[in-house]
Amino acid sequence: MTEHTSSAALPIKNARILIVGGASLVGSASAEQLLNKGAKEVVILDNFYQGTPKALEHIKDDPRLTVISGDVMRLHDMIAATKGIDGVLQLAAVMTITMDLDPWRGLDVNIRGVQNVLEACEINNVKKLVFASSTAVYGYGSGIIGDLVETTPFHSIGSPSAAVLYGSSKIIGEQLCRATHKRCGLDYVVLRYATVYGERQHYRAANALYIMDTYDRIKKGERPQIVGDGSDTKHFVHVSDIASANLAAFEANTTDIAVNISGPKPVTTLEIVRLVTELSGKNVEPEHIDPNPNKVRLTAGGAWQLDHSLAGEKIDWQPKVDMREGIQRLIAWREAEEAKA
Amino acid sequence: MTEHTSSAALPIKNARILIVGGASLVGSASAEQLLNKGAKEVVILDNFYQGTPKALEHIKDDPRLTVISGDVMRLHDMIAATKGIDGVLQLAAVMTITMDLDPWRGLDVNIRGVQNVLEACEINNVKKLVFASSTAVYGYGSGIIGDLVETTPFHSIGSPSAAVLYGSSKIIGEQLCRATHKRCGLDYVVLRYATVYGERQHYRAANALYIMDTYDRIKKGERPQIVGDGSDTKHFVHVSDIASANLAAFEANTTDIAVNISGPKPVTTLEIVRLVTELSGKNVEPEHIDPNPNKVRLTAGGAWQLDHSLAGEKIDWQPKVDMREGIQRLIAWREAEEAKA
Repeated sequence: MTEHTSSAALPIKNARILIVGGASLVGSASAEQLLNKGAKEVVILDNFYQGTPKALEHIKDDPRLTVISGDVMRLHDMIAATKGIDGVLQLAAVMTITMDLDPWRGLDVNIRGVQNVLEACEINNVKKLVFASSTAVYGYGSGIIGDLVETTPFHSIGSPSAAVLYGSSKIIGEQLCRATHKRCGLDYVVLRYATVYGERQHYRAANALYIMDTYDRIKKGERPQIVGDGSDTKHFVHVSDIASANLAAFEANTTDIAVNISGPKPVTTLEIVRLVTELSGKNVEPEHIDPNPNKVRLTAGGAWQLDHSLAGEKIDWQPKVDMREGIQRLIAWREAEEAKA
Repeated sequence: MTEHTSSAALPIKNARILIVGGASLVGSASAEQLLNKGAKEVVILDNFYQGTPKALEHIKDDPRLTVISGDVMRLHDMIAATKGIDGVLQLAAVMTITMDLDPWRGLDVNIRGVQNVLEACEINNVKKLVFASSTAVYGYGSGIIGDLVETTPFHSIGSPSAAVLYGSSKIIGEQLCRATHKRCGLDYVVLRYATVYGERQHYRAANALYIMDTYDRIKKGERPQIVGDGSDTKHFVHVSDIASANLAAFEANTTDIAVNISGPKPVTTLEIVRLVTELSGKNVEPEHIDPNPNKVRLTAGGAWQLDHSLAGEKIDWQPKVDMREGIQRLIAWREAEEAKA
């Protein structure tokens, strides 16, 4: 185990890192980068409720990778998994769509699950935790004024209850990290992810569904659909940039902080749909449809920016992948998957 | 049981009301007003972790009052307690001071506890729920601009983690009510209480401690203490006004809404301390002290108003007791208690 020093930096080289909820979009890309950067061991813990072994196929033959089945809701599992671990990347979470279907499970995982991870880190003297929070901590709705910075309050008026529950549960997760740091000195960095997309994309993120639905409709020869006029702004970040942010958060001599992690610039839903259409090699106009009241939709309305300059300053991180390159990579991965099937 | 109609009004006369967490400051005053207004039955459920039988002494001989021991963390208790009940007043909660000491318990009670109450209401076809939320859903800290109205976002920057956890847990409680209403039609009103004070005052509310500490120090012949210059604004509401708001929320033909419940006007901590000193019959100057870093303090900074006009409009409620009368009543109760002891 790395010696605990007064520095909050945890160099990846030779470190043992546990990724909780790691058989996932973000977990798989992060594990790959950790291995590439010389981690001694990468342990992936997942309960495979949402995660899949398939997400780890590209790295499964690396002898430094261990995959274990466990659940954040079982403190015992977390204590066992954190033994001898230097750094924990806590990804296990229920997002808004699943929160809408099952709020009991969602609140359990996002709150009690985080408590269990923190408790285990304290017990096993883990050096540093990186906690995957979300820009959902700023909420949605019409009240947001100006750019989203780390001091922006949580806006909930006009949002679906599942979105408010999700955002609040992430606020609580962040504060549990803060309270644990104060109590026992566990170093931590909270990363507030924008909507993550990229290789090994799933169908569980409300905003990334714009990409997947457009791709699927085009493949079926249908016109892509846009709810409303498509002018609402979205903030995406490519999964490789998220992974590099996770590594940067471990390596930075920074603790007890929350920073935004977002892509180079915002896009409108119309721009995304047009980009996916173009990169899928089609030239069709999207169809504008009315909202389905039974589906959770996240609409921010305003054309605000999601400012990630604090991440540059505090963990020396910048996004590298723009939306065109990111969607190209996502489509290339998807087509390779379909060719295999 | 009252017939379920399309009206969201639940008249108190002849109704059976369950008060969850009722052996308390707010519960005892609410039970008394419910009995006075002709309720058929008032059931108090409490786990007596914070509540005390003593809080119910003034009404314990009313044959319409039933006191049962139960816990919001046991769904079974809640299902049993809501059988045949028309309206539920959900008060059981952990406040900021206790949240600071034991966040696991606090989040359990304020989130899972509320889920259990809602589940039980759904199972037993309860007509209406009144949920005790808090103006803590607007947060604290320096970012608040203008008056606090029901659309004000949640400000957490600069607040102690226990205060953020408490506020977030109340936001979640509110949204669970909203999600339940949407799912099964349970009518509900969320009341966002300001700091409650009055007869049967306890020592668990961070802001009401200004009153209690001042009173205690004066009784011991010591000078009252104020942290800092005492210019920070507080929002109190007398417990009799809270009780009348609870009744009004049941009786109003109003559902699926959250309204602020606060006293006639804000006061500064210096004004409170001076008022308690004067009404205790003493003429001593307060001593200004530095904050104790080990105690949770809630400081809003700004001199904003807490607007309760929506409660006037939606549930026909206005506060009646000003701070002078309220503190007189609190001191009279306290002195009567001490005379008995």
